[in-house]
Amino acid sequence: MNIYTCLTPLNITNDLLEGATAVVIDALRMTSTAVTALANGCAGILPVAGVEEARALAAGMPDALLCGERKGMPLEGFVLGNSPLEYTPERVQGRRIISSTTNGTRVLCMATPAHTVLLGAFLNAAALARHVCSAKKLVFLCAGTCDALSMEDVLVAGRIIADLQNLGVNPILDDASEAAVCLYEAGKRDLADMLLRRSAHCRYLLSLGKAVADDVRYCIQEDVYDVVPVVQNGWILNKAW
Amino acid sequence: MNIYTCLTPLNITNDLLEGATAVVIDALRMTSTAVTALANGCAGILPVAGVEEARALAAGMPDALLCGERKGMPLEGFVLGNSPLEYTPERVQGRRIISSTTNGTRVLCMATPAHTVLLGAFLNAAALARHVCSAKKLVFLCAGTCDALSMEDVLVAGRIIADLQNLGVNPILDDASEAAVCLYEAGKRDLADMLLRRSAHCRYLLSLGKAVADDVRYCIQEDVYDVVPVVQNGWILNKAW
Repeated sequence: MNIYTCLTPLNITNDLLEGATAVVIDALRMTSTAVTALANGCAGILPVAGVEEARALAAGMPDALLCGERKGMPLEGFVLGNSPLEYTPERVQGRRIISSTTNGTRVLCMATPAHTVLLGAFLNAAALARHVCSAKKLVFLCAGTCDALSMEDVLVAGRIIADLQNLGVNPILDDASEAAVCLYEAGKRDLADMLLRRSAHCRYLLSLGKAVADDVRYCIQEDVYDVVPVVQNGWILNKAW
Repeated sequence: MNIYTCLTPLNITNDLLEGATAVVIDALRMTSTAVTALANGCAGILPVAGVEEARALAAGMPDALLCGERKGMPLEGFVLGNSPLEYTPERVQGRRIISSTTNGTRVLCMATPAHTVLLGAFLNAAALARHVCSAKKLVFLCAGTCDALSMEDVLVAGRIIADLQNLGVNPILDDASEAAVCLYEAGKRDLADMLLRRSAHCRYLLSLGKAVADDVRYCIQEDVYDVVPVVQNGWILNKAW
């Protein structure tokens, strides 16, 4: 297995994605929210780049929930924001979701040339590592924040790589993947402390108040769900069950 | 002081460079070679992107030495390659150099919008940290290898950031800079081992034979020279003396 890590969206190229299993990571909070929604029985999530496009699609799909955020804040007319804690079984069981978020949705669109597109987070790291352990070419796409690296996304990639190494896969890593696993090893004893010290996006979210701080604490939990979200025909579905 | 790190050339933007002190890092081997040449009395280095352009310039500058490499290998008609060990006082004292290299020269060109452009390497890390400690905005430009991250360049950035922190500067770091300093802290006890395990470019150079392996061992020495190369009117000069 060859593993490549795009530490920011600027590092994504179509060549790299050709024939690859791509893992999109936006741990705070898009991919964590998707994992949670699917774990709680959501029927599928349609990621949409633009806010207006999302509104228009929702108008034609009355059963669907319109969800998303911009710069970490809720959007008018959207029934749910980007807090994974909002995506309870009571709200999402059996429902379809139309979603637009700041960074994650954009990277999902960029992942399209890959053979397979999956979504990764701390919450489903172990399940994802088991799911991809026979892939030939694995590419992590870290969503980051406005084209800059976000430590939390890199740490998720590093965690999954560490799992693959522990599973007996002997992957060949590019230097960016080596960096990711080395950073995870450095931070794994206390991920909360690592992120508080080294993630500007994490500190920004914590500054938005208690509700978002609760999200951050929730999203940095490892291995809560055996869910592997996969993109099929534009929809994010739960293929682990 | 705000510090930003471009982990690859793809992450460089003109906005980031505006008003900044930029530090170009291509530790294996361009910036290490430049530091060595200037330390050994070279009068100045003219970095040139194209091989033919370098040959044409050299034809009009008969006193100058034509130097450089492509993919780590010497070029026909060039008197010196990219091995810093070739740049002895006997060869370079008082001489001008025209240089074209694979990755480093390209990033030097990209650095042009910055207020000040310096060259960093393990060899001059401490001198460089002292030199930039009063900068307001510092941007590390890691040359990498063909647009991908190279661990050795990131470790040089991390080393200089660690020095700035130890000098009592309390810099505000972006996540990429946090990653760089964290990787340096993880590898500093045995940089050679870290690079052998985690730098594909380092392993590639070591595979080219003993002479290049000697270069690698030479380039990962820290704080050998009190030289801070600076770009002025297109020339790399030694401004530390």
